[in-house]
Amino acid sequence: MILSALTTSVGINLALTVLLAAAYSLLRRRPPYVEVYSPRRPYAPLEPWLAAAWRRAEEDIHAAAGLDGVVFIRIFVFSIRVFAAAAVLGVGVLLPVNFLGDQLREIDFTDLPNKSIDLFSISNVQDGSSKLWLHFSAVYIITGITCYLLYHEYKYISGKRLEYFMISKPLPQHFTVLVRAIPVSDGVSVGDAVDKFFKEYHASTYLSHTIVRQTGKLRRLLNDAESICTKLTNLNHVRRSTGDPPRKLGLFSRNDLVGEYQKRLEDLEENVRMEQSDATRRQEIPAAFVSFRSRYSAANAVYIRQSDNPTEWQTEEAPDPHDVYWPFFSTSFMERWIAKFVVFVASVLLILVFLLVVAFVQGLTYLEQLEKWLPFLRNILEIAVVSQLVTGYLPSVILHVLSSCVPSIMKLFSTMQGFVSVSGIEQSACNKMLRFTIWTAFFANVLTGSALVQFEIFLNPKELPSKLAVLVPAQASFFIAYVVTSWTSITSELTQITALFCHLWGKCAKCCKRDYSKAPSMPYYSEIPRILLFGLIGLAYFIVAPLILPFVLVYFCLGYFIFRNQLFNVYAPKYDTGGKFWPVVHNTTIFSLVVLHIIAIGVFGIKKLPLASSLLLPLPPLTLLFNEFCRNRFLPIFEAYSTESLLKKDREEQSKPDMAEFFSNLVTAYCDPALKPFQRASNSDERTAPLLASLSSSR
Amino acid sequence: MILSALTTSVGINLALTVLLAAAYSLLRRRPPYVEVYSPRRPYAPLEPWLAAAWRRAEEDIHAAAGLDGVVFIRIFVFSIRVFAAAAVLGVGVLLPVNFLGDQLREIDFTDLPNKSIDLFSISNVQDGSSKLWLHFSAVYIITGITCYLLYHEYKYISGKRLEYFMISKPLPQHFTVLVRAIPVSDGVSVGDAVDKFFKEYHASTYLSHTIVRQTGKLRRLLNDAESICTKLTNLNHVRRSTGDPPRKLGLFSRNDLVGEYQKRLEDLEENVRMEQSDATRRQEIPAAFVSFRSRYSAANAVYIRQSDNPTEWQTEEAPDPHDVYWPFFSTSFMERWIAKFVVFVASVLLILVFLLVVAFVQGLTYLEQLEKWLPFLRNILEIAVVSQLVTGYLPSVILHVLSSCVPSIMKLFSTMQGFVSVSGIEQSACNKMLRFTIWTAFFANVLTGSALVQFEIFLNPKELPSKLAVLVPAQASFFIAYVVTSWTSITSELTQITALFCHLWGKCAKCCKRDYSKAPSMPYYSEIPRILLFGLIGLAYFIVAPLILPFVLVYFCLGYFIFRNQLFNVYAPKYDTGGKFWPVVHNTTIFSLVVLHIIAIGVFGIKKLPLASSLLLPLPPLTLLFNEFCRNRFLPIFEAYSTESLLKKDREEQSKPDMAEFFSNLVTAYCDPALKPFQRASNSDERTAPLLASLSSSR
Repeated sequence: MILSALTTSVGINLALTVLLAAAYSLLRRRPPYVEVYSPRRPYAPLEPWLAAAWRRAEEDIHAAAGLDGVVFIRIFVFSIRVFAAAAVLGVGVLLPVNFLGDQLREIDFTDLPNKSIDLFSISNVQDGSSKLWLHFSAVYIITGITCYLLYHEYKYISGKRLEYFMISKPLPQHFTVLVRAIPVSDGVSVGDAVDKFFKEYHASTYLSHTIVRQTGKLRRLLNDAESICTKLTNLNHVRRSTGDPPRKLGLFSRNDLVGEYQKRLEDLEENVRMEQSDATRRQEIPAAFVSFRSRYSAANAVYIRQSDNPTEWQTEEAPDPHDVYWPFFSTSFMERWIAKFVVFVASVLLILVFLLVVAFVQGLTYLEQLEKWLPFLRNILEIAVVSQLVTGYLPSVILHVLSSCVPSIMKLFSTMQGFVSVSGIEQSACNKMLRFTIWTAFFANVLTGSALVQFEIFLNPKELPSKLAVLVPAQASFFIAYVVTSWTSITSELTQITALFCHLWGKCAKCCKRDYSKAPSMPYYSEIPRILLFGLIGLAYFIVAPLILPFVLVYFCLGYFIFRNQLFNVYAPKYDTGGKFWPVVHNTTIFSLVVLHIIAIGVFGIKKLPLASSLLLPLPPLTLLFNEFCRNRFLPIFEAYSTESLLKKDREEQSKPDMAEFFSNLVTAYCDPALKPFQRASNSDERTAPLLASLSSSR
Repeated sequence: MILSALTTSVGINLALTVLLAAAYSLLRRRPPYVEVYSPRRPYAPLEPWLAAAWRRAEEDIHAAAGLDGVVFIRIFVFSIRVFAAAAVLGVGVLLPVNFLGDQLREIDFTDLPNKSIDLFSISNVQDGSSKLWLHFSAVYIITGITCYLLYHEYKYISGKRLEYFMISKPLPQHFTVLVRAIPVSDGVSVGDAVDKFFKEYHASTYLSHTIVRQTGKLRRLLNDAESICTKLTNLNHVRRSTGDPPRKLGLFSRNDLVGEYQKRLEDLEENVRMEQSDATRRQEIPAAFVSFRSRYSAANAVYIRQSDNPTEWQTEEAPDPHDVYWPFFSTSFMERWIAKFVVFVASVLLILVFLLVVAFVQGLTYLEQLEKWLPFLRNILEIAVVSQLVTGYLPSVILHVLSSCVPSIMKLFSTMQGFVSVSGIEQSACNKMLRFTIWTAFFANVLTGSALVQFEIFLNPKELPSKLAVLVPAQASFFIAYVVTSWTSITSELTQITALFCHLWGKCAKCCKRDYSKAPSMPYYSEIPRILLFGLIGLAYFIVAPLILPFVLVYFCLGYFIFRNQLFNVYAPKYDTGGKFWPVVHNTTIFSLVVLHIIAIGVFGIKKLPLASSLLLPLPPLTLLFNEFCRNRFLPIFEAYSTESLLKKDREEQSKPDMAEFFSNLVTAYCDPALKPFQRASNSDERTAPLLASLSSSR
């Protein structure tokens, strides 16, 4: 890529970014768009959004989006700090050194726009030059800074986790454990077995239990009812808001439609009621939520094996009642086992298919290749603007669009794997996405070859650095363009283009399936891997092509402001994992550092400075040792609360008067929402309300 | 190896085995040898040992040698069952099929003694013959039988573990946890910190604590005292037993010697007393044994993290007070860290050195090579008996002798790694020995090449089966000879040749360092890997050379009788891990099965029966799946006791009157024996007794 192509790309994206931000600033206060841009509030905030996002305190973020929201924003804070330091080092020291090198050609300040951006990369430094020691020092310095910031951040977030635990209200999940594989003898119900066992072994602390029942059929009925309810609500909403009398709409009049829907809803209601009264008597699953009188005794039941037979009375921490993924309990063990296998095969297939696509996209940066493949395009491609657009912009756009479909597929995979909670599903999907993103978006682009060839490179660890040192710099222009394109994609988060179109289409079609009265939840599982990818790209290219660093920094700054705004106005938290996403961020950053080290070792080898290569060898082990230390020091805090915290919290609340009420609510907290009865109401508009309420809690 | 060489080897070893057993039967009742052959009893048992070993019940073994002894005998029972089935299949079906094949030469029943034993191996079966399906079925059958027996045995032993826990007396280790990394602020002693913490968070169950102190110097003084005591006791013993008056012995008269020793002992005693009174005031280590009022509350303290900071108040299960390895606490964190690194390097070096030796030994089975190396031996080697002895016997002897030095080195390595208990050290040494044995005694002999070449074979997993299929049959004769030689080595366990020589030499020299009044402890860490090696050899050669199976079976039968005798008469248990060695046996057997599968897959490929190879492919994953099941089903039982067991046991004892005494003893149970005071006695013979008692408990 030549410098002018890069400038074009930066120009287009900067323009788009500003355009999108301006469009958002204009539209967000208009009444028809408030539902899209501020679904969490019934009104459009008066303050300018950028200023509001800047001023917000962390306590506000915690109040609005939970500790997960805080952690999410901390990812940006951490990345901005790292890349601010990296950009100072890279642009201030490495970039001039690279540009003043003469390996690629003699210095010639004329015709700068047609210069290749390789002039700014380490390739331009003379082989064996002593200036390379600057690059060497930079690797050590950035590793040191990143590790220091990682430690600081891990400490900060684990401190916050403990702090918010100590000031939290009593939560059902802290007092409850999920018991599975309950052994049942003939003639004894699961409930009696649970009662007997826990009254015997946890007599003083056992409070109550809720048996889990199979509610698959009931859930299908409720889902049908839900879609009809949504349609009805939308119809009524439109009728009321437009105020127009019933008129023909296609084949049915709107009144016919409403009558038809109401009839079907009544039938379904009847079915649901029958099914509910039936289900209480049959299809018990040998699993139960067992509640205790204190957090410490619940922890006891989780961390000490209950039964002599380890395959019976298996206990685990219960999720938040709203976070329980109830359909999981309706699947049989065999179904889950097969699903796991299918998920494994499907994940592999997905990566393979995606690699083919990436190989094609990758070809676009080399115009000659494209012309060979599609000869009829030759005339068009010879136009300067088109060629710059195609090489500088198109590949990244395709990649961005395709990548956006993957998260929902990964979430589907995780759902099939059988987690008991939505947060569990999303955490697993986050890990899957991370692996997928790093492999397809980074390594596949770097290694450019068939999946088999890529895999073989990793089988020969001794030659990995030198191979990466050749392959990574070759793709610098692609990744610079990719980072620049990402500005638009992260700003489009602000304008919520998909939601906007749905909303507008919904208004036109007057009847839409999606219910816009509810705020969507933040898709951490797709956003976190995407952000971490840019961290990896930035660190991997830190010494090879420091030109990328300011662009990465801009990306993180944009993200910081945009998501501080979105977490307040758009997304409502669906669950609170208590910051369990941070260890993923930590580990990925360590991985990125090691990738940087391996590339640096290879580069110094190729650049004929073997001493620097050798002196870098201790860095990966030291980094991993640091990671091991952090794993011992902080990770247990994210896995379980300590005796100290649990007992302190328990004692603090012992005397509080509202605990009696909490315990009485706790008894019914883990009731399957599909089994909760709903009341009949006379008004056709209001009658859907209780059902809707019951449905929304069953999500 | 030809058949006559094998017969010679079997003949020699059978003769030696019978000779050793006969010698043992004759000598064991003679008064001078009772101390060697029945150190656990003051008398020689009257019954014939073989009959007694046969009749003994498992309860007796448990009483005499603990659950570890039971597990040790169950290894033989399990192996005998597996190899009885294998021998029936191998000798009854596979051997005739192999022998009647005609791949190697036409059938010729004349001159049988000069036939190569390869005629009995699978190499002799015609390539692609349908008879190979018999071998194929045999692999499936033996895998099925072994897995069934493994499951049965795991279930049996885990049942025994629970059973013996339920009938055990109250033991200090069940009520106690070891707390490390106790944070101490200035001006507060470790003891006060422990008291404060546990009184706050375990108020109702906390009983007492014992602070660990640095006693390195004191221990060295006591060791010196011990060696002098032993010498004194031996001198006195000899004087009393021979009844002769003091006479000259070299430069000193015996009385001079006794006086000299007594003087030094008095000095040491004085030093020890000073050091003890001093040590109580200084050098506290931030570690303590904390005792609780019930087993369940001790388990609580172990399995739930205590402090918000995971690097403080780290808890783990306490070992038996006699099992604590006190010198560990005297080493600093840095020393242990360096030791770990040194141990790693030393282990690698040990394997490399040993591989060189094995390569030489391996050469001995090929006479031509040996003649080339050592031309002056040519004349001697041409004598028939000598050549048969050298090829059939000598290599195995060298290997056996060398292997016998390794266990103590491995134990030393494990000691340096920093375990808090002797049983922990020996379990780690057992794992090290296992890896060492499998690598040097099996793979190094099979792969015959430099360590690097060996390693490279494992880097290419696709070609591993076909390579093993070529290399494994080539070494069949070596391993048959090795198994046959092992008969002698296991019978020499009975005659305790080393101990016998020491004893006799001690009687001659009248003054020996070793104290024969104490029974030695069973070296599980060296014996278990050795036994498991024969299981691996037997299974690996199951279809390749079924001739080996009866020899392996004889080995296990010998071992069964011999160790049933030795556990009663010779070895006294030093600790009781509660059967924790069984999971090692289980995993190794699974490993052996997978090795069998890989070899079989390769063999059928070479024998031009690719369908059989393909049909064997599901077997390794199925075996590993079975292992995974067992790991979930049984392993947790060996790691911790369940709430069910702990509470049952606690409740059972609540009302017992002798618990008060137990608790009062518990308070001082974990006192460092080096700090226990010893009384002065007037009689020179008796005065050593209390010191000795204090010393023996400090071991």
